[in-house]
This record gives sequence, C-alpha cells and structure tokens, in this order.
Amino acid sequence: MSDGTRAAMSETAAERNLRLLVEYDGTAYCGWQFQENGPSIQAELLRALEGLTGQRPVISVAGRTDAGVHAVGQVASLRIVSRVPTRRFASALNSQLPNDISVHRVDEMPSSFDARHSAHSKRYRYRIYQGSEPAALEPRAWYRRRPLAVAPMREAAALLIGEHDFESFRSVHCDAPHARRRMLDITLDEQERPPVGRTLDIVFHANAYCRHMCRILTGTLVDVGRGRKTPSDVARVLEARDRTLAGLTAPPRGLTLLEVLY
Amino acid sequence: MSDGTRAAMSETAAERNLRLLVEYDGTAYCGWQFQENGPSIQAELLRALEGLTGQRPVISVAGRTDAGVHAVGQVASLRIVSRVPTRRFASALNSQLPNDISVHRVDEMPSSFDARHSAHSKRYRYRIYQGSEPAALEPRAWYRRRPLAVAPMREAAALLIGEHDFESFRSVHCDAPHARRRMLDITLDEQERPPVGRTLDIVFHANAYCRHMCRILTGTLVDVGRGRKTPSDVARVLEARDRTLAGLTAPPRGLTLLEVLY
Repeated sequence: MSDGTRAAMSETAAERNLRLLVEYDGTAYCGWQFQENGPSIQAELLRALEGLTGQRPVISVAGRTDAGVHAVGQVASLRIVSRVPTRRFASALNSQLPNDISVHRVDEMPSSFDARHSAHSKRYRYRIYQGSEPAALEPRAWYRRRPLAVAPMREAAALLIGEHDFESFRSVHCDAPHARRRMLDITLDEQERPPVGRTLDIVFHANAYCRHMCRILTGTLVDVGRGRKTPSDVARVLEARDRTLAGLTAPPRGLTLLEVLY
Repeated sequence: MSDGTRAAMSETAAERNLRLLVEYDGTAYCGWQFQENGPSIQAELLRALEGLTGQRPVISVAGRTDAGVHAVGQVASLRIVSRVPTRRFASALNSQLPNDISVHRVDEMPSSFDARHSAHSKRYRYRIYQGSEPAALEPRAWYRRRPLAVAPMREAAALLIGEHDFESFRSVHCDAPHARRRMLDITLDEQERPPVGRTLDIVFHANAYCRHMCRILTGTLVDVGRGRKTPSDVARVLEARDRTLAGLTAPPRGLTLLEVLY
C-alpha cells in the first residue's frame, strides 16, 4: 500500500461490518451474554476489540449460549471503524483473548449482514459419555453410567422433526414470544470410545431454538433411552405443550454449538 | 456372601495384585512420577488408595508420562491388602480423585503380573492442530499455523519402523542403559476439523520408549512436513546416533498414552 493510499483510507475510514467465527470452551464462563455474576464470552471479546480499536461495538450473535455451553462455530457480527486488515484481525484479537476463546477468522460483510437475524439455521451437538466410570478426558460430555437404548431414542427423535410448537421443551424463563420452531434434523451417532465406554452424540439442526431447548430435548430422549418413556410418550409430550411432562434439563457441559448456516 | 465367608476372608485377607486402567488430563500435573515441584498422578492415586485402604503401596506403571502428557489407557499395578470387591474398587477410588484423573476399572491379576515389566508394547498418539488460528477446544494438541506435507512425513515414518538404536531421538537426560527399541508401527491420520483447520494424529507403536522419544520423533517428522528435512535426512539422523541432528522436542500437551498391550 502506498503512503497516498494509506492517507486516503485514514481520511475516509468508514464503518465496516465484520463477521467473526468464534470457538470457545464455555466451562469458565457464565455464557455468551454479559452477566453480573461472572465473566462472559461477549465481555472478553469486547475487551479484546477495545484493546485493538478503542471501540466497544454492539455485538450481534447467532447463538446466545448458556453458562457452561461451548461453541466451535459461533458467529458474531459488529460494526466498527478500524483499519486493521481483515486477514490480520483474527490473530490481533487472539493475542488479547484468553486461551479458551479463539477467533478462527474475520470477514468483511455487506452492511445488510447480521449474525443473528441473517441466520438460516443452527446445528448443536449434545455429547453423552457412557461407561462404568467417568472419563477424565471427556469433561465436555454428560456422564451416564448405564447404557442407553439408542434405537427407541432415534424413533422418538424422528417424531420431533418438522415444524412444531416446542412449548414443552423450553425453560419457563424463556422470553421468546412463542415456541414454534422448525426442527430440520436430529441424528444420533454412537461410537466406541477406547479403552472402555462409548460416546453418544445427538446433533440437532433447527431454524431456531428456545431457551434450554437442546438440553430439555436431550433429557427427554435420555428418558426414552432408559426405558422411562416410549417414543409415543414423547409425541404426547410435544402435543401437550407442558414443560413439566418433558425430561430434565441435561447439564450444559455436554452441549456445543457446531455451526450456523446462512 | 455369608457372614461365615466374610469372617474367613477377614482372617485370611491376603495381598492382592491389582491392575488399574487409568485415564488423565496431564495439564495440571508434573507427570506420573513424584516430583518435588508439583502434583503428580502417582501422588493423587496414592492419596486415594490410602484413603480407601490405609496403605501406600508401591505402584508399578507401564508409561512414566512426562509433565503435561495425558493418558486414556495407562496401566498401573500394585499389591495391597484390602477386602474392597474388585467391581467396586474403581468407583471407590474415583470418589477420592480429582476430576482430571479417573480409574476405568480395577482387576485382580495373578501375582506374576507387573504393569511395567509384563508390558509387550505401548501406543502413543501425538496430535497436531493446523489452522490459520489456534482452536480453543484443542488444548491437547500442538498448534501449527502452516500446513504440513503429510506424504513425505509418512515416507520418513516408514524408515523408522523396525528395531533400531534411537539414540538420536532421546533426551540427553534419559537414564536408560541404551536406546535400542523396536518400532512396530507409525501411522499418520489427517482429518478435517470443522469449522476450519485439520488435525494430524501421529500414532507410535513400539515395544518401549526412551525419554522424550515420541516428542523428538514428532519434532523431526514436523521438520519433514515443513520441508526442512527429507525422508533420507531422517534415515541419516537415525544412523548418526546424535541427538543434535534430530528435530526439536514437540510440546507435551499434544501427547497421549493410548494403550498398553500385554
């Protein structure tokens, strides 16, 4: 870049709309959103952005993950005035972020792009580790001692696909106006996990989610895997629009936001 | 068990030879062995054994992993007088162990079994994460920004298979009398790692290892992947029996003891 170009850019430095692809281990955080009671992913990102640009922009995010929930493919967007080149932005942020948060890449987007409102759908994975004892290297899984029957869980999951009112599967603290969501797919993938035990990954793909929806769906499917509910019980829970009929909310540590589709 | 049997066992409680299958995240530890400068896996296990049985037995271990190195299939053995049934021993220990150490199972073995001396061979995995930026959820991998050429790394690895004097690939602080070891296999497995980047797993299978051997072999293979060494250079390094000619010692966090074969 010539000095002339640089000077011209400096004068005309305009607001840029940046998209960030973010990964984090949520264990130490009270979630994406600012909280009074602990550190949040958003606060850490803002601190790094402020260090780099002197600004604290409003950040739009695709998935407002709860305390203890992780992400490999979280997407955030923000408008900022900065001359840091896009290809250097991610490493400049990473140098100011703790090791449990990393920015994979930063891209400049048309001004119409918004990480939250432009999202078409999101994929979340819930991981369960089954074994006679817990596994030290599976901290981001829900440990279940007894084996789960996966076939009826798959049958129940199939009944949840499509557009439904997921009222039974959202937290009573959910502030969305309604619970109508389109579940595009649910897959269950069981793998041996040497030397002993196995993992069960439940991957949800929906246009949007209510609060705790993946975790309540997981708790309910686990009830099916334990023989406490049948697949047709799950269909009845869905119809009943009553949170008290669904299963427990599975713990946050097993949940990871995999991907946001646009 | 009848009261009579229990009383008889109590009187005749004999020393049992127990085999433990152990998993740990080595991040917070100065290694398997007791150290003056920090907590060790062995010390944590002894503390739990003492809490359960009142004894501090000598523990034999298959792989004396270094500071920061992990294990999913570590094997330890010890002789102890205890009437805790084998099937309850693992969970009794886990209830007294920190979350980053877990015992998968405990088995009673013939008195001739020794975790270290009876081992036929061991498999270690070294994981590299390659991407334009580090990944928060890959703390147990060596982060390398630039892509590695895997084909020449495989070619170099093939030249290391067989019985050799691995003098060039052991720490100068290794206290083994010689460095002759039998490398049974080395495999390299590259996988896409969504949303961006990829992992490269190098799995070593040898009858035994010198100190830092997996990590120096990894550092040397990485030199090949970067184009700094050719496969025939690696053959020459092996022949030279000179540590200074091999690559750097790869960081411990990428190394995991996978399996001990008997």
